[in-house]
Amino acid sequence: MIRAAELIEQKRNGGEHDPEELAELILAYARDEVPDYQMAAWCMAVYFNGLTAAETHALTDAMVRSGETLDLAAALGRKVVDKHSTGGVGDKTSIAVGPIVAACGVPFGKMSGRGLGHTGGTLDKLESIPGYRVELTTDELVAQVRAVGMAIVGQTAALVPADKKLYALRDVTATVDITSLIASSIMSKKLAAGAQAIVLDVKVGDGAFMKTLEDARALAELMREAGTRAGREVTCLLTDMDQPLGRAVGNALEIHEARDTVRGDGPADFTELVLDASARLLAYSDLGVDLHEGRDRAEAAVADGSALEVYERWIRAQGGEPDPAVLERAPVRRPVQAPRDGVVTRLGARAVGTVALELGAGRRMKGDPVDHAVGVLCFAKRGDTVLAGDDLAEVHARDETAADRAVTAVLAAYEFGDSSLPEHGIVLDVVG
Amino acid sequence: MIRAAELIEQKRNGGEHDPEELAELILAYARDEVPDYQMAAWCMAVYFNGLTAAETHALTDAMVRSGETLDLAAALGRKVVDKHSTGGVGDKTSIAVGPIVAACGVPFGKMSGRGLGHTGGTLDKLESIPGYRVELTTDELVAQVRAVGMAIVGQTAALVPADKKLYALRDVTATVDITSLIASSIMSKKLAAGAQAIVLDVKVGDGAFMKTLEDARALAELMREAGTRAGREVTCLLTDMDQPLGRAVGNALEIHEARDTVRGDGPADFTELVLDASARLLAYSDLGVDLHEGRDRAEAAVADGSALEVYERWIRAQGGEPDPAVLERAPVRRPVQAPRDGVVTRLGARAVGTVALELGAGRRMKGDPVDHAVGVLCFAKRGDTVLAGDDLAEVHARDETAADRAVTAVLAAYEFGDSSLPEHGIVLDVVG
Repeated sequence: MIRAAELIEQKRNGGEHDPEELAELILAYARDEVPDYQMAAWCMAVYFNGLTAAETHALTDAMVRSGETLDLAAALGRKVVDKHSTGGVGDKTSIAVGPIVAACGVPFGKMSGRGLGHTGGTLDKLESIPGYRVELTTDELVAQVRAVGMAIVGQTAALVPADKKLYALRDVTATVDITSLIASSIMSKKLAAGAQAIVLDVKVGDGAFMKTLEDARALAELMREAGTRAGREVTCLLTDMDQPLGRAVGNALEIHEARDTVRGDGPADFTELVLDASARLLAYSDLGVDLHEGRDRAEAAVADGSALEVYERWIRAQGGEPDPAVLERAPVRRPVQAPRDGVVTRLGARAVGTVALELGAGRRMKGDPVDHAVGVLCFAKRGDTVLAGDDLAEVHARDETAADRAVTAVLAAYEFGDSSLPEHGIVLDVVG
Repeated sequence: MIRAAELIEQKRNGGEHDPEELAELILAYARDEVPDYQMAAWCMAVYFNGLTAAETHALTDAMVRSGETLDLAAALGRKVVDKHSTGGVGDKTSIAVGPIVAACGVPFGKMSGRGLGHTGGTLDKLESIPGYRVELTTDELVAQVRAVGMAIVGQTAALVPADKKLYALRDVTATVDITSLIASSIMSKKLAAGAQAIVLDVKVGDGAFMKTLEDARALAELMREAGTRAGREVTCLLTDMDQPLGRAVGNALEIHEARDTVRGDGPADFTELVLDASARLLAYSDLGVDLHEGRDRAEAAVADGSALEVYERWIRAQGGEPDPAVLERAPVRRPVQAPRDGVVTRLGARAVGTVALELGAGRRMKGDPVDHAVGVLCFAKRGDTVLAGDDLAEVHARDETAADRAVTAVLAAYEFGDSSLPEHGIVLDVVG
């Protein structure tokens, strides 16, 4: 029997667990043999004393072993690449990357999650498309990737059940923001889903878990190491989450923007991230192209309309209607106007994410319903020059009261200055 | 609804709780409205970030409010004094103090606890007396204190249920040794039991929670402040727990020793502690005597046999047989002999407590059965000069195998030197 109290005490006292004992703790927890209250105390001890790389690896490995694994590569007879984001505001990257990569001939079968708090989730966004089914069986997933080149589905309960259980517990015990636990949660899902090469988008800034480049780099290195130890290729992009990604924040609004980007009409920062991530996935694939050639092919798939074709086939294959005209629109739309002439020096990602949450686009608690129509479009971003009275943003709300509050809050998320700022791209750094 | 996750995060981040919010957290936990896993995470955050004096006070107060309280003073029409020990090895102090104080005319109605780990519990010791009933109703308790002057009983479930629940949780989540939580656990029980003046015996040393005088003093001051804020008089004795208290460690063995001490035939260190604590209780009582006079009266009650008479009446009133001949004796008794000439420089309290635990005198887990007969008698204590082959100690065991192991372990608990050490009394310091 696992001596959970002794392991909690060991971690509390700053000790290092034996990898086998740690694995057994996690597996026993997954089997309901260790109660939630002991894992909660352990997670809090980890918050203060951390996990070593060896412990993080043992934890990740145990998570994978707690359930079934998928071998998409064997099922497809292809090398399988995957991407994942640590979560941010306005992050609809997978929805645009998938069709581009698939249009270039690389299979893209991705499992995504739901949103919580100020960050959105890919599944919630996709469900704003009428008819879109997020739950496919493994056989359906494989068949669809074969037929149309891609699929984005919910994670099956059979994969990494330990992570599902531990994440739900961390969520209600103030133990979410722990680098080692985030790393093992993400990597266990990626490893169990069977990808051989993984591009990780590690968000950095006030709208992300990782507030500083240093913290983001630490998380990236932990995840890369966990992947490498499991024989996978891993690249981490550290990307800007000090302001929302692209313009759209809110489920249906983000579907519009992802589709626009797939056909070459997206906002600059988001387009750059989508093309960069796509190029890296192509370079990792069995196409035998380098990063430069990958980028050319990704741009070509956007330019020649083949990515949009895949997008439409994919959405239809998964039961949805790809025509953006069917997406629900919020009844109240209200502009947010610039109070002065100047340059936007800041647009708080977390603040905008919270506005969207309060409009109903997100959920405070697991299981809360989501309003697909509402959200915010941020036309003016950091570095943009505006004149007093210009439309900075547009609030999409369910009613007038919510719109009033949101307009005030969005305006408060903006800061202005008198001169332009040093610029940087969306990708701040690359690890691996 | 209490936002438990936010309070956990606040404490995790080193913040201070609003007293009302903290009280509500505890009361909601007692009502089963906050789950164990959230309290476990909170306790671990408290381990790292502590509680302020104001928080400790709010916690203590909430614990008291979580259940019923007793007003022994009103029921008896007397000022009520109480004592409590933070727990150690060989600590049978209440069993000797009660009869002495009662013999001097001061009512003594005490609620005690059970042992866990290497420390024993007063109730377990008393239950080694055939027939002794630890569970009395409040009416029975009051009637017995009126009739024979004293009673020692188990704590009723109706008093401080929050503490009972929280303690059980802390016990399995490595969150027992937290000064503020220990202080509020002890003081909430004392306050709910209604004593107007309290003598706290804070154990210091390797067999106690508090390993250093500094830590013990911090705990003492927290408890004294909690008592003072609630309008009670509190004195804390900081007493030596680097070696076992007295000679006897083990349930029936300790009953023998407590009775011996009540009739003036106890070991020096234990006798000193019993008389000091008794004198302080008398000085706190409504007898109107000072500490010096209290000490004289306590010594007189031992010398004239009145304390022994009360002991016998008390045990009988509670259903037990006071004749020590009826106490169970272990079948195997084995001496532990000195390996060399010298002076005992150390006798590890925790080590001896662990031997007793392994012999069966204690319990590893709540609800484990306790063997009343087994234990250790330590004849040689720190500072004693011994010759090779002298009996240092005697192991009382259930069988030969257990005795063998215990002899080796007791011997390992002794250290020897060549010259005598600076001596100190059992009471190291007094707070308040």
